[in-house]
Amino acid sequence: VIIPPFEIDFKKAIKIINEKGYKRILLQIPEGLKNHFTKFVEHVEKETGAIVNISADPCYGACDIANSDIEKLKIDFVIQIGHAPFPFIKNYIVPTAFVNAIVNLDVSKVIEKAIPILSGNKVGLVSTAQHIHLLNKVNNILLENNIEAFIGKGDRRIEKKGQIIGCNFSAATDISDSIDMFLFLGDGVFHPLGLKLSTKKPVVICNPYTNEVQKSELDDIKDMILRQRYGAIARSKDARIFGIIVGSKLGQQRIDLAYEIKDKLDSCQKESYILISNNFNPANLEGFRNIDCLVSTACPRIAIDDYMQYNTPIITPVELDIVLGSKKWDDYRFDEILNP
Amino acid sequence: VIIPPFEIDFKKAIKIINEKGYKRILLQIPEGLKNHFTKFVEHVEKETGAIVNISADPCYGACDIANSDIEKLKIDFVIQIGHAPFPFIKNYIVPTAFVNAIVNLDVSKVIEKAIPILSGNKVGLVSTAQHIHLLNKVNNILLENNIEAFIGKGDRRIEKKGQIIGCNFSAATDISDSIDMFLFLGDGVFHPLGLKLSTKKPVVICNPYTNEVQKSELDDIKDMILRQRYGAIARSKDARIFGIIVGSKLGQQRIDLAYEIKDKLDSCQKESYILISNNFNPANLEGFRNIDCLVSTACPRIAIDDYMQYNTPIITPVELDIVLGSKKWDDYRFDEILNP
Repeated sequence: VIIPPFEIDFKKAIKIINEKGYKRILLQIPEGLKNHFTKFVEHVEKETGAIVNISADPCYGACDIANSDIEKLKIDFVIQIGHAPFPFIKNYIVPTAFVNAIVNLDVSKVIEKAIPILSGNKVGLVSTAQHIHLLNKVNNILLENNIEAFIGKGDRRIEKKGQIIGCNFSAATDISDSIDMFLFLGDGVFHPLGLKLSTKKPVVICNPYTNEVQKSELDDIKDMILRQRYGAIARSKDARIFGIIVGSKLGQQRIDLAYEIKDKLDSCQKESYILISNNFNPANLEGFRNIDCLVSTACPRIAIDDYMQYNTPIITPVELDIVLGSKKWDDYRFDEILNP
Repeated sequence: VIIPPFEIDFKKAIKIINEKGYKRILLQIPEGLKNHFTKFVEHVEKETGAIVNISADPCYGACDIANSDIEKLKIDFVIQIGHAPFPFIKNYIVPTAFVNAIVNLDVSKVIEKAIPILSGNKVGLVSTAQHIHLLNKVNNILLENNIEAFIGKGDRRIEKKGQIIGCNFSAATDISDSIDMFLFLGDGVFHPLGLKLSTKKPVVICNPYTNEVQKSELDDIKDMILRQRYGAIARSKDARIFGIIVGSKLGQQRIDLAYEIKDKLDSCQKESYILISNNFNPANLEGFRNIDCLVSTACPRIAIDDYMQYNTPIITPVELDIVLGSKKWDDYRFDEILNP
């Protein structure tokens, strides 16, 4: 199925469905592709004869796999579109296929545009799931221009070489010491920002959609976000009651970290409570008005991206250490979920 | 723990925790009591020495039991406050205690006020979980006034005699043929409204908080809601694409009904898709903009209570039959989830 700029290839999933005779399928579609759901359903139903249902729960990443919830709903098979699986998860209650939504664009223009900046440097290559297959092409162009490139291997949370996700930059930190700068192939600023904060290396963004190359622009965004984070930390200094949030989604579940944080707060004579939720959002936290500061061990994006939506300052575990004085502002780093 | 007008008695739950040596507890608190969470946590922690975490997921009823989500979070025991359990659920993945939040009020005033209306009639007594223990007192007052009262037994979804919940009025329909009118003890209009629409009998509301007795007022609300439902049905007549929503919460999961509805729509040459979600809300449905009409097999309250929040008309399975012409408007009845 082609929904420009995306190509979604259901062949493998369809083969499994037909071989196993699965009759009832659940389709999980990432937010950006949800409004095309009829095309996906029609295609898979036509090729398999199965009934294809759709999950209406939020689907932002590999954390959002349909889990034991659907066990009793007589679903034989799940197709998740657009997210690479977590390799550390070996078994799903309902068998699940991950179908990538890849973007096939000509990267030569944007990479050639970046050559003057990259020249003379050792370059680390990273990208996100939908562009990761283009990194070999990028590598070849750099080689032709005598630029040495490296592609790192991530931890057990990362499926593909060079792949970074919003909560894990291990494929970048893996090669960080060997390189001078990173080339991020893709769009958006969240991933390159996390990359920069995790590795402290310069990042060149090559956007294959607009053919734009950005480098210093990222510093402005980084400064803005860091000012915001500094503000959140400052607002949390006088907090009396802390809420430690734990995401119950497979792939989050940092309950041990939550207990460590609770112990830390206990020893600083700070009151704290652990709040567990599948899907954190401001509405679900409305009943906890007497909490002065939220520490999120759930998706690291909640604190960074959704900061403005919460009335209470929401900080990451690293940021709490700065609040409590056990880490300095100069030690600031991006929250990651590593090696589960 | 007393939070006027509620009394929450944790004794039984505490006994279990101490006997079994449970160390990590999850507390589920209904929306209206959530902002008192610190009192509950302190009490249970003091009496048990366990760590008490709090669920931040929505908790509107017995459907919202912490399920397999928390299996990997090392929680030994769940305490759910304020909802009666579904008797048909025999086993929970994590052992669960249901702790009622009861309201102890003097009902004599409001019942005596209702005597003139009830006199000479056979009366069915119904209430909600927090007042159900007061029905015996009500029964005695009626007996003293020579009024014959009946308390019905619900189906496998209902724990206590005379108890009604938002999606099940079986404890009322059980005795409907033997009585002239119902006495509903409690507040709010949703339950008496469902009661009236399910049983077609007059309902006298006795509100023990305000000591008000209401009868004809309910007809006005009923008429308003029915006009709204009539409007939703009218708006759905020309719908081309239907979304059938299935709640994945334990206690909802009407997937078989969803497939029946899909078959019906197929035979009327209407396109339809089954949407599965744990927690339906307008935000989760934003990606399904080309759907013209939603048929909800999830919580019956979604269509009735939250109707105004959705851009798309949202109707119940009974209402769909009216849309498709297989039932008449005069056959209108309230959607219930019965005998799971």
